[in-house]
Amino acid sequence: MSGHATSLRLKLPAICFLLQLLTIILFAVYVRYDEETSANLWHQKLRHHNGSNLDNDFYFRYPSFQDVHTMIFIGFGFLMTFLKRYGFSSVAFNFLIAAFAIQWSTLIQGFLHSFHNGKIHVGIESMINADFCSGAILISFGAVLGKTSPVQLLLMTLLEVTLFGINEYILLSLIGAKDAGGSMTIHTFGAYFGLTVSRLLYRPHLNKSRQREGSVYHSDLFAMIGTIYLWLFWPSFNSAVTAHGDDQHRTVLNTYFSLAASTLATFAISSLINGEGKLDMVHIQNAALAGGVVVGTSAEMMLTPFGAMIAGFLAGTISTLGFKFITPILDSKLKIQDTCGVHNLHGLPGVLGALLGALVAGLATQDKVWGGRPLYSGRGTLFIPPPVYFPPGGILKMSFLASPPDTQCFEDQIYWEVRAKGLSSFSFNISKGRGKAQPAQ
Amino acid sequence: MSGHATSLRLKLPAICFLLQLLTIILFAVYVRYDEETSANLWHQKLRHHNGSNLDNDFYFRYPSFQDVHTMIFIGFGFLMTFLKRYGFSSVAFNFLIAAFAIQWSTLIQGFLHSFHNGKIHVGIESMINADFCSGAILISFGAVLGKTSPVQLLLMTLLEVTLFGINEYILLSLIGAKDAGGSMTIHTFGAYFGLTVSRLLYRPHLNKSRQREGSVYHSDLFAMIGTIYLWLFWPSFNSAVTAHGDDQHRTVLNTYFSLAASTLATFAISSLINGEGKLDMVHIQNAALAGGVVVGTSAEMMLTPFGAMIAGFLAGTISTLGFKFITPILDSKLKIQDTCGVHNLHGLPGVLGALLGALVAGLATQDKVWGGRPLYSGRGTLFIPPPVYFPPGGILKMSFLASPPDTQCFEDQIYWEVRAKGLSSFSFNISKGRGKAQPAQ
Amino acid sequence: MSGHATSLRLKLPAICFLLQLLTIILFAVYVRYDEETSANLWHQKLRHHNGSNLDNDFYFRYPSFQDVHTMIFIGFGFLMTFLKRYGFSSVAFNFLIAAFAIQWSTLIQGFLHSFHNGKIHVGIESMINADFCSGAILISFGAVLGKTSPVQLLLMTLLEVTLFGINEYILLSLIGAKDAGGSMTIHTFGAYFGLTVSRLLYRPHLNKSRQREGSVYHSDLFAMIGTIYLWLFWPSFNSAVTAHGDDQHRTVLNTYFSLAASTLATFAISSLINGEGKLDMVHIQNAALAGGVVVGTSAEMMLTPFGAMIAGFLAGTISTLGFKFITPILDSKLKIQDTCGVHNLHGLPGVLGALLGALVAGLATQDKVWGGRPLYSGRGTLFIPPPVYFPPGGILKMSFLASPPDTQCFEDQIYWEVRAKGLSSFSFNISKGRGKAQPAQ
Repeated sequence: MSGHATSLRLKLPAICFLLQLLTIILFAVYVRYDEETSANLWHQKLRHHNGSNLDNDFYFRYPSFQDVHTMIFIGFGFLMTFLKRYGFSSVAFNFLIAAFAIQWSTLIQGFLHSFHNGKIHVGIESMINADFCSGAILISFGAVLGKTSPVQLLLMTLLEVTLFGINEYILLSLIGAKDAGGSMTIHTFGAYFGLTVSRLLYRPHLNKSRQREGSVYHSDLFAMIGTIYLWLFWPSFNSAVTAHGDDQHRTVLNTYFSLAASTLATFAISSLINGEGKLDMVHIQNAALAGGVVVGTSAEMMLTPFGAMIAGFLAGTISTLGFKFITPILDSKLKIQDTCGVHNLHGLPGVLGALLGALVAGLATQDKVWGGRPLYSGRGTLFIPPPVYFPPGGILKMSFLASPPDTQCFEDQIYWEVRAKGLSSFSFNISKGRGKAQPAQ
Repeated sequence: MSGHATSLRLKLPAICFLLQLLTIILFAVYVRYDEETSANLWHQKLRHHNGSNLDNDFYFRYPSFQDVHTMIFIGFGFLMTFLKRYGFSSVAFNFLIAAFAIQWSTLIQGFLHSFHNGKIHVGIESMINADFCSGAILISFGAVLGKTSPVQLLLMTLLEVTLFGINEYILLSLIGAKDAGGSMTIHTFGAYFGLTVSRLLYRPHLNKSRQREGSVYHSDLFAMIGTIYLWLFWPSFNSAVTAHGDDQHRTVLNTYFSLAASTLATFAISSLINGEGKLDMVHIQNAALAGGVVVGTSAEMMLTPFGAMIAGFLAGTISTLGFKFITPILDSKLKIQDTCGVHNLHGLPGVLGALLGALVAGLATQDKVWGGRPLYSGRGTLFIPPPVYFPPGGILKMSFLASPPDTQCFEDQIYWEVRAKGLSSFSFNISKGRGKAQPAQ
Repeated sequence: MSGHATSLRLKLPAICFLLQLLTIILFAVYVRYDEETSANLWHQKLRHHNGSNLDNDFYFRYPSFQDVHTMIFIGFGFLMTFLKRYGFSSVAFNFLIAAFAIQWSTLIQGFLHSFHNGKIHVGIESMINADFCSGAILISFGAVLGKTSPVQLLLMTLLEVTLFGINEYILLSLIGAKDAGGSMTIHTFGAYFGLTVSRLLYRPHLNKSRQREGSVYHSDLFAMIGTIYLWLFWPSFNSAVTAHGDDQHRTVLNTYFSLAASTLATFAISSLINGEGKLDMVHIQNAALAGGVVVGTSAEMMLTPFGAMIAGFLAGTISTLGFKFITPILDSKLKIQDTCGVHNLHGLPGVLGALLGALVAGLATQDKVWGGRPLYSGRGTLFIPPPVYFPPGGILKMSFLASPPDTQCFEDQIYWEVRAKGLSSFSFNISKGRGKAQPAQ
């Protein structure tokens, strides 16, 4: 490997310019303000319905949107900073691919879900859905974290957003499933897509970089910023696009209780399975969130608060056990190197959530739960069979994509100007009365 | 002390499982959706009142709830990461006990405040109140930070939530006081409960761990994340359960001005009392928040903006002086070791806030202030005399609760897998063209 | 230089007390609750209009306000923590001057914009506008970061808030421009004011502190917290005071797309202009935000989503190039030392945004864009010529203001108690079964 191979100098600008140019052209041709964001359409609507500016859906969705937005960029971004030498890449590549994903998915979801009279109409709902889609991409990013260049990641985003849209279309539009919080469409899809890509990009010699595949003290604290924000705003995530009124309110409540229970389960299991009876930050950072994933499908239903707690408690338990027992097997037996353990946080709890949705929908009589609206939740969890992913995976393997060598995985320095080593590059001279710092040595 | 004594292996899982199981059973028996979260009840209500889904209280309380939620989990959690070696425990035990507290207080507050026809009905208001209660627990946690195991903390939570509910019931329901921002019910109660527990768990040999009872450079920055979020969202905290309309709006405004003034007071006093004229992060991290505490009772009243500023300025001044002069006395004379100085941030300003509430309520004619609503704010600040806390305190002292030895206080490693020392475990090799990291030495 | 000269002991308390006292007196005389925060006025209004408490503007502005508030205190505060030895000062002086600025600008903006019957009436809109004004001050702070004492900064705030109000009055009230997101009033003004002050305080011997004018690994991660929050909430910033309904909704949408495109541009240009094809955190932390600045004036107009993307892409490109090519020239040729590069993030994109606003307003027919409302956006970008700033600048140069010496710029220790060097002050002893930490050596 030469320094040249991982240089982003021409590759990254080329793909960024190309994707942004393509997006701008498609937006110019197809994307228009919807009736809540267009001056003309909105004022027409107001006149016809004798309404008020304060009825604009902006006021009833935007706070939820901002919570979701925070999860995508702060939550996912900082959760992945746990690696000792990959903090820049974690938070900044997360930033880059989400910034592209929200644009691209506005187009893909628009073509598939809201293409009327040859135009895509955008507003707060399209923004939330675009953020949701980028959530799935970032889950996949977690599986390949540290082993892919930003060029590969942008290509992956281009392909995955497209497949995400198709999968979502099959699930929600053709089959008619309900999945407001995305147990199936976001978590299960994002996790298994990421694992498939990770399998395709399998590195037999990754042990050359294993010494960097861990945390240091402060990187674990940065990661906790991500964890806590994901945990806090998961009720908003699951409820952001549910129907207004009791649905949205109930979704929040159920998610809140499920998360609380999964947190206790995670602490319990983490200390139980550790030989010295110590807790493990990996578990706390991840498995405590499984309660949000597991009720993604069912939280809008009449799950009951104690039902949400049971679901959350099981999800936290299974997720923590997954980190201890399944991740090593995925690596050693199935050649799937899952950097962030997305299988445990998003894969397993997502599948469990789909089953739970089917169960709750099955138990409830239609009338009692939904006031007459049809419900087919939980039918099928993944509709694009894994082999379909292989061709795009193949594209990602192409050698000119600035992928890191096996010896340089989990390492910021190949993609970033890193100016100085840690804080210790300066000693703090704390002798009184002088107050002057000295460079070390 | 042996390594065994602080092992969480059986103790933490046992208490987590037990508490969660108990909670789930009680929820199954007693907790139901309220009329804003239940599909049936909400649609009945809509039909009877000819209302709209957009009238659901969700839209008028949820943004405030999320601000409060952020204060509880990010604000308190990161504020306590200032200790150099206790960041994992600070943010994660905060996470654990708040996750349990919100469940348990939903039950306790439900039984005491909203138990109708044998059921507790839950929705956004119960969520806010549960978060409030957990705020009191986390204040107490601040007093015993670094000196207690998570097992002890969960037991403390179980007991304190219960007493919190009783105290709140006496104050708000029996006496009829108004205390929307919890100067009395949350801050004063939480602080003095915590100080009582700290007194009960007094460690004469804590000096063996004093070298860890301080900050390092980056731990103080992590703590500032907590401080700023608490400061930002305190207007939401004080207003989250006030009456809709001008009350909520005015509470926000008064709190905003009070906080601004307490910030200037804190910087002023901090530099004034330092021998070298330097500022102290301990003061900025804490006393700047006193402006939020001090108007907890009175912010919803016609306090006037300049009244709020005077209150905030006094609170910031007193709180900063407390850190300098009172904390050492509590430790040396009263055997109360108050790790975070909660007496200065929550205790003193809470008492001051109760007095201020009484004053403002007394000054105002009923009609002028409340449009005819009765007002008894400020009567009495704490209704459970400290001796009542002793028996539960006694339980916390039991030797099998994995409490740290005197030599191991303020130390993450006894409860956590700590994988590597700081960032310095790797030197950053920044020689050009090589880009390869080497483990130090 | 002696330690004495930078002591804050008497200077900082004096200015804090004085400013706070003056503010309190002026508030007592002039500031009153507005009709949405006053109990009497609100209930009168309700009776006259047969309205509901839920119509209070609090519910339609407060979530936006809190996003803006987060940008001011977390966003700006943490963005500036990138310096290796200036994290305390960055986040805490940001905190101090913003806390004063929001009070002082409530008065100044009140006198100039909403002075009726001899009183200033305050509520959520005045809070947002006060936060906006403090944004301009913090932009200026970025230009002089590390080279000024908190005493100088408070004086600068006093003067700049006043000039900000006058400039805003000329632009918005006299000329009638629209500038909801403040491309002109906030970004351009704040940047060029800060650069003027930096020029006045030019330090020919700043090279004595250059070794501290850079980042370390974790300080760049702290800065990313600021960046991401600014990026996330910029849609709220631009829309916080626009008209309710489609205006506010459309402003959010345009800003969202502009920011996404500026992010891709920043990554592209950053890697393109680096000799080794590496990315630079300075660019990502700053230029990715230029998309928010550039649509500050035009985002509320019918800019179209693809128009917003083009604007954002250009702004990200120009801003990144500015860091590479213009900042060094400002320093070497014009004697302007711009610590944070505010010229690139706020100056250039702000001017571009003003031009864009004029262009979009000019292109659109009045009817099509605004439904009949008059529009004069983009006329003139700065109305107070730079020479006007010189006298206040002169005041800031006075020698008794605790300004740091040239050898002690970018250094927390002159103003802060810094208790220990980095995390490395303790080695983490991770030998099994002992679990005991030892102070290093």
